[in-house]
Amino acid sequence: MTDSKIMFDSKSKAKDNKQSKQQANQQAKQQAKLPAKENFSEWYHELLMTAEVVDNRYPVKGMCVWFPFGYAIKKNVYAIIRQLLDPDHQETQFPLLIPENEFMKEAAHIKGFEEEVYWVTSGGTSPLDVKLALRPTSETAIYPMFKVWIRSHADLPLRIYQIVNTFRYETKHTRPLIRLREITSFKEAHTVHATWEDAAEQVEVAIARYSEFYRRLALPFLVSRRPSWDKFPGADYTTAIDVIMPDGRTLQVGTAHHLGSTFAKTYEITYEAENGEQKLVSQTCYGISERCIAALISVHGDETGLVLPWTVAPTQVVIVPILLGDKEKVVAVCRQIEKELCSAQMRVQLDTSDERPGAKFYKWEMKGVPIRLEVGPKDIEKGVVTLVRRDKVKKAVPMIELVSAINKEADELQTALYTKAGNFHESKVKEVASIEQAKAQTLVGVALVPWCGEIECGHNLEDQVEANMLGEPQYLNFPEAACAVCGKKSTGRTYMARQY
Amino acid sequence: MTDSKIMFDSKSKAKDNKQSKQQANQQAKQQAKLPAKENFSEWYHELLMTAEVVDNRYPVKGMCVWFPFGYAIKKNVYAIIRQLLDPDHQETQFPLLIPENEFMKEAAHIKGFEEEVYWVTSGGTSPLDVKLALRPTSETAIYPMFKVWIRSHADLPLRIYQIVNTFRYETKHTRPLIRLREITSFKEAHTVHATWEDAAEQVEVAIARYSEFYRRLALPFLVSRRPSWDKFPGADYTTAIDVIMPDGRTLQVGTAHHLGSTFAKTYEITYEAENGEQKLVSQTCYGISERCIAALISVHGDETGLVLPWTVAPTQVVIVPILLGDKEKVVAVCRQIEKELCSAQMRVQLDTSDERPGAKFYKWEMKGVPIRLEVGPKDIEKGVVTLVRRDKVKKAVPMIELVSAINKEADELQTALYTKAGNFHESKVKEVASIEQAKAQTLVGVALVPWCGEIECGHNLEDQVEANMLGEPQYLNFPEAACAVCGKKSTGRTYMARQY
Repeated sequence: MTDSKIMFDSKSKAKDNKQSKQQANQQAKQQAKLPAKENFSEWYHELLMTAEVVDNRYPVKGMCVWFPFGYAIKKNVYAIIRQLLDPDHQETQFPLLIPENEFMKEAAHIKGFEEEVYWVTSGGTSPLDVKLALRPTSETAIYPMFKVWIRSHADLPLRIYQIVNTFRYETKHTRPLIRLREITSFKEAHTVHATWEDAAEQVEVAIARYSEFYRRLALPFLVSRRPSWDKFPGADYTTAIDVIMPDGRTLQVGTAHHLGSTFAKTYEITYEAENGEQKLVSQTCYGISERCIAALISVHGDETGLVLPWTVAPTQVVIVPILLGDKEKVVAVCRQIEKELCSAQMRVQLDTSDERPGAKFYKWEMKGVPIRLEVGPKDIEKGVVTLVRRDKVKKAVPMIELVSAINKEADELQTALYTKAGNFHESKVKEVASIEQAKAQTLVGVALVPWCGEIECGHNLEDQVEANMLGEPQYLNFPEAACAVCGKKSTGRTYMARQY
Repeated sequence: MTDSKIMFDSKSKAKDNKQSKQQANQQAKQQAKLPAKENFSEWYHELLMTAEVVDNRYPVKGMCVWFPFGYAIKKNVYAIIRQLLDPDHQETQFPLLIPENEFMKEAAHIKGFEEEVYWVTSGGTSPLDVKLALRPTSETAIYPMFKVWIRSHADLPLRIYQIVNTFRYETKHTRPLIRLREITSFKEAHTVHATWEDAAEQVEVAIARYSEFYRRLALPFLVSRRPSWDKFPGADYTTAIDVIMPDGRTLQVGTAHHLGSTFAKTYEITYEAENGEQKLVSQTCYGISERCIAALISVHGDETGLVLPWTVAPTQVVIVPILLGDKEKVVAVCRQIEKELCSAQMRVQLDTSDERPGAKFYKWEMKGVPIRLEVGPKDIEKGVVTLVRRDKVKKAVPMIELVSAINKEADELQTALYTKAGNFHESKVKEVASIEQAKAQTLVGVALVPWCGEIECGHNLEDQVEANMLGEPQYLNFPEAACAVCGKKSTGRTYMARQY
């Protein structure tokens, strides 16, 4: 990873300014703090630009450019997803464009997407015979191929995934990484099974993999079964993962859908069972988009910049030489350390640029580097380096045990991040008993509301609380309580929140 | 890499057949040879399906599905490209959709692409205010951002690349991996420099990297400067890399363009020089698409299937147990070998499926696995394994030095592949003196034709030879000869060929 050469505060070019003045201005701006995190939206937008994650100035609404630094984060994040899926999923790639006739086959599915689909209607200067949809998701591209790929029970289960760009003509307010018109990195898995039960089990597997994924990003989350009116178009049911953002709103960062045989019927996907009978398959699909990076940045970041978990930081360790006294010796020691850490498979960078140490500290904090090493003549004399963690923990570490010390600090930092995020998460979820309480709680976080499970009560709740129902918490049991709407006793609960 | 579960010969489902009959048919088909390679087109199409590289049955012309196995090849091939670029290029990602006004700014560029552009004209059920082009290439998406990213000489050189899907509404006959309407993996690099000379040097760097890339794929190629009427729309000049396909036609598999300041003027990309002056930048761009995989498959493959270089084979070594005598012992030994090769960082697979050894040999040859190990009771008794290279070289190798023996054989196989491809390549290029000779030669391969360099003579050549001019060979010197058209003496030459 070489340092990005891209300037981040170049909204317009001051062509007539003297360079020295320009540099001074830029330095001042670089040293300026981000807005307070309480102003989440402002903080978030400025952080994405200043830390060079994505550039929101691309001239189409809802479409962003990945800066090289942001792209490096993305690569590391998606490498974890691949690592978790590859043991029993196969990566593939399907075309972006879906012919209108295939797209329009599944009625429930179209209904869910028709308002959001971009259509290609001409090639060159001539209109196309058949309009082509830009995939909002790929069921209708993939399942016609499953029809020809699958013949017998021996072909099942089939588990594939792809990481691709998808498109949604969002009419709501767009936000970088959160609500986009081009989702650049949609990981969508599609699986095919012999029975409904096998598919249901696969949904659990998907949630387990996603849980492990978010654990590695040190992100706590909620798992809930979406209410029937908010499930994926065409699905039997949808299980979703939500992260609580700094402003208390939730961000859906992963979903797993049991598709039953809905698409199998539409696309005629059958297999020959062992007894020779032709049967419809059962299917699932599950997805994660770059929203996982939005969550990562939002939950962990602070007013001095990104805070990246060790697992995904493009630079895990930065070495800053303190150039006093015998400068050559300092640089030589730094190079030796760089070499040693590289050999230990760490992503390390030695910053030998001309900036002052303070400016370097500022810059690498902004980039979220987990561990900074400061190496000056005094440190060298004592045989130590000064190690500063991104959470400000600072200590002198003997040079002879540097690698193991860094590994230890990296582990502790990861744990500290997770703990901090966990405390925040827990502080934002509150059990309530009434609609009034739910209304108050959803202004600041997530309400856990007693709900009998009736659809009418559910709609009623959403209307009166003026927040969304995330659905029933999964893997948790609750004592009986009175439904916040009808008062009927049940063990049912639903999360409610304002959603992104 | 687990073995693909996908059936490759399932054009239609025989729902009423008994399974045993189905299996027998399938086995017979599996054992059938590919068409002779002389019938290149037929051989190529059947190989892509049978070896499970891409599936051409997707219901939009010119768009293919990557089978998991083909996708694994692609991953390995593009990993080499990344490895070659990453030391001094930064990976990024720009949006797919380009607003019409940006796209239409550069006149020469539009002219080159307007017949091939797919247009998005509606979002949901409403027409868009501004039409959006699906990128055929990304100059017009990237350069408006360069305008805001670049301010001073300190920002230069800037070298970025992205690997993305691009679209061309091809009206010519489409072919999988060769002429596509969705190019799924276009690697496009874009660089920005202070001077025209720096950019010219970058073009050389690009060609050097591409040369190394093709060397690793064991593929010989031609490098030539495209004639002025065939350069990239908007470029000062274009240098191209062509591979000679089995039928003697050439496939353009890489191009590097010196863009001069054409786009810099259009998109107002300037920098402040050290003396404070505002100057236009100079630019280059260079690209490689999945055509590199088409070339790889076409040049190396044979009538029993793919022949994959060790560098990119998803499975480098397959172990086939010969289950006679003490079967458990044979499997145990195979597992031990598998473990050993895994530890040595080889991509290895042990085939313990129920098929007969002959069927396994057939299958893994089709998949182009470089090295097969056969392990039976007799081998174990003698302390050897039978090693069979994809080029049919077969030998017994002592078990105790297996890893080094495989590495040695892999190297030799790579050299053998390259030599074979080199011999083919050389046999297909012939120096000629006249138009008649050029015409005869371009029916079977590439003609090297004396050409004075005049545009009129060039057009004349193309018309009379009925083949394309690839352009002047680069890095080669020739003695004086008479131009095949006007007879004027010069040291100029051009390659001519029928192109894909």
